[in-house]
Amino acid sequence: MKIAVVGLGIIGGSFCKAIKLHTQHHVIGINRTLSVARQALADGAIDEIGSPEQLGSADLIILCMYPQACVDFIRENGCHIRRGAIVTDSSGIKRAICPQLCELSREFGFVFVGSHPMAGKETNGYASSDGRLYEGASFIITPCGAPDEAVDTLAELALSIGFGSVTMSDPEEHDRMIAYTSQLPHILACAYVLSPCCPNHKGFSAGSYRDVSRVANINSKLWSELFLENREPLIEELRELNKNLTAIIDAIKESDRDAIADLLEQGHRVKQMLGE
Amino acid sequence: MKIAVVGLGIIGGSFCKAIKLHTQHHVIGINRTLSVARQALADGAIDEIGSPEQLGSADLIILCMYPQACVDFIRENGCHIRRGAIVTDSSGIKRAICPQLCELSREFGFVFVGSHPMAGKETNGYASSDGRLYEGASFIITPCGAPDEAVDTLAELALSIGFGSVTMSDPEEHDRMIAYTSQLPHILACAYVLSPCCPNHKGFSAGSYRDVSRVANINSKLWSELFLENREPLIEELRELNKNLTAIIDAIKESDRDAIADLLEQGHRVKQMLGE
Repeated sequence: MKIAVVGLGIIGGSFCKAIKLHTQHHVIGINRTLSVARQALADGAIDEIGSPEQLGSADLIILCMYPQACVDFIRENGCHIRRGAIVTDSSGIKRAICPQLCELSREFGFVFVGSHPMAGKETNGYASSDGRLYEGASFIITPCGAPDEAVDTLAELALSIGFGSVTMSDPEEHDRMIAYTSQLPHILACAYVLSPCCPNHKGFSAGSYRDVSRVANINSKLWSELFLENREPLIEELRELNKNLTAIIDAIKESDRDAIADLLEQGHRVKQMLGE
Repeated sequence: MKIAVVGLGIIGGSFCKAIKLHTQHHVIGINRTLSVARQALADGAIDEIGSPEQLGSADLIILCMYPQACVDFIRENGCHIRRGAIVTDSSGIKRAICPQLCELSREFGFVFVGSHPMAGKETNGYASSDGRLYEGASFIITPCGAPDEAVDTLAELALSIGFGSVTMSDPEEHDRMIAYTSQLPHILACAYVLSPCCPNHKGFSAGSYRDVSRVANINSKLWSELFLENREPLIEELRELNKNLTAIIDAIKESDRDAIADLLEQGHRVKQMLGE
């Protein structure tokens, strides 16, 4: 296949590198800042530098920009995509993006399949991209009505470039689960490091601090957009967390040892049941 | 030195193994359950199995039991300790333990130096102990009025068995910082995994979920004691977290993109400043 990757940040750059590392597909890199695309070419992460006008040569297009920027890009450049080509986004939210891209797919005659690679780092940009970033990770696909053939093509590509599994979902389930698995930890991490104790943690901290604070090193522009585009499921998860947190806090305030132990034991049992 | 380690769980077992791995000191293992001590002897983690009555032969005694159990143990067996021997605990709280052990040191004529090895795992018991657990970790010492010589002996031992650094503190500062760096992440993790989404996370999760939930696999009995013995600093940190969390939640509820981005950026800046 000829695969065009649009946006060579950590996600797009890692797709390019993983495809070149594992497959014979031809990779076209498209990036607003040309110097980054040149670097990718020099690294062998892409086979050629492309432009939106050249999208017609691609069999598969992977959009790796901010969510709304993906929609804007297709609205502007959808006319260049050849009929029947597969387009996928890699956005961390789906309800706000998939319906718009589905509509554009009908308008321009391409096939849209939503997807979300479940991997990342606390750093950004092409310099952070890594051909092994997706190794063992889950690749979520939201087919959104696309033909099985296109869904299979995308799933096979994901598994061939190192993803450990493919999870089929729909935009509603995806957004509800992502609010919990990804967005909530980022909010917790940011709230956590705002304590006046944080700047003095060294010498007093170990793995617990490191793990809960890691993703506070956040791209605030991207995540503000992700949070707002997923406002309702996220608020629901924050409410759930607040309820459970309050129960533990109240038990501590009341010095109720049995109640504390019981709540902690519930947490312990969830992890044990999951074998984690 | 002859070093007695009392309590061969993950912390005590790891001390034994690290001492044998890195030094020529003679290690006496004392454990309520004899089969565990026998296993430690078979593993070469200790040189001999001791009993409380034989504490008199030890130059240094490292207590590795639950906090109040350390105090009870010394109250009962302090009479066997030779005058001038150094006793240290390894408790995760200090204000509730150090004054009692200081008083007992005057009564029985030993030298007490408080300490806390900043390392652990989400599993417990001798089977989880590891001679490399403390590699690079911080060893906190709360001298509590002990002579410099005894403090130096303990600090040197810590560095010689793999700890990366020694941090001097007092019980108040220790407990305030530990409430933040260690206790709060454990509470967050437990509250986090109590969401109904948690059991279904697989396929939808990656590093953020893994990291924030890791320590929910908690020893509920030990941590209930640690939380209650450090109630005030912990409640203070929980209040601080709640304030910062509420600010982010409110901004999301109000769809105030600038406010969200600003709060996330503050978190980002803290981590950047710390070089993390």
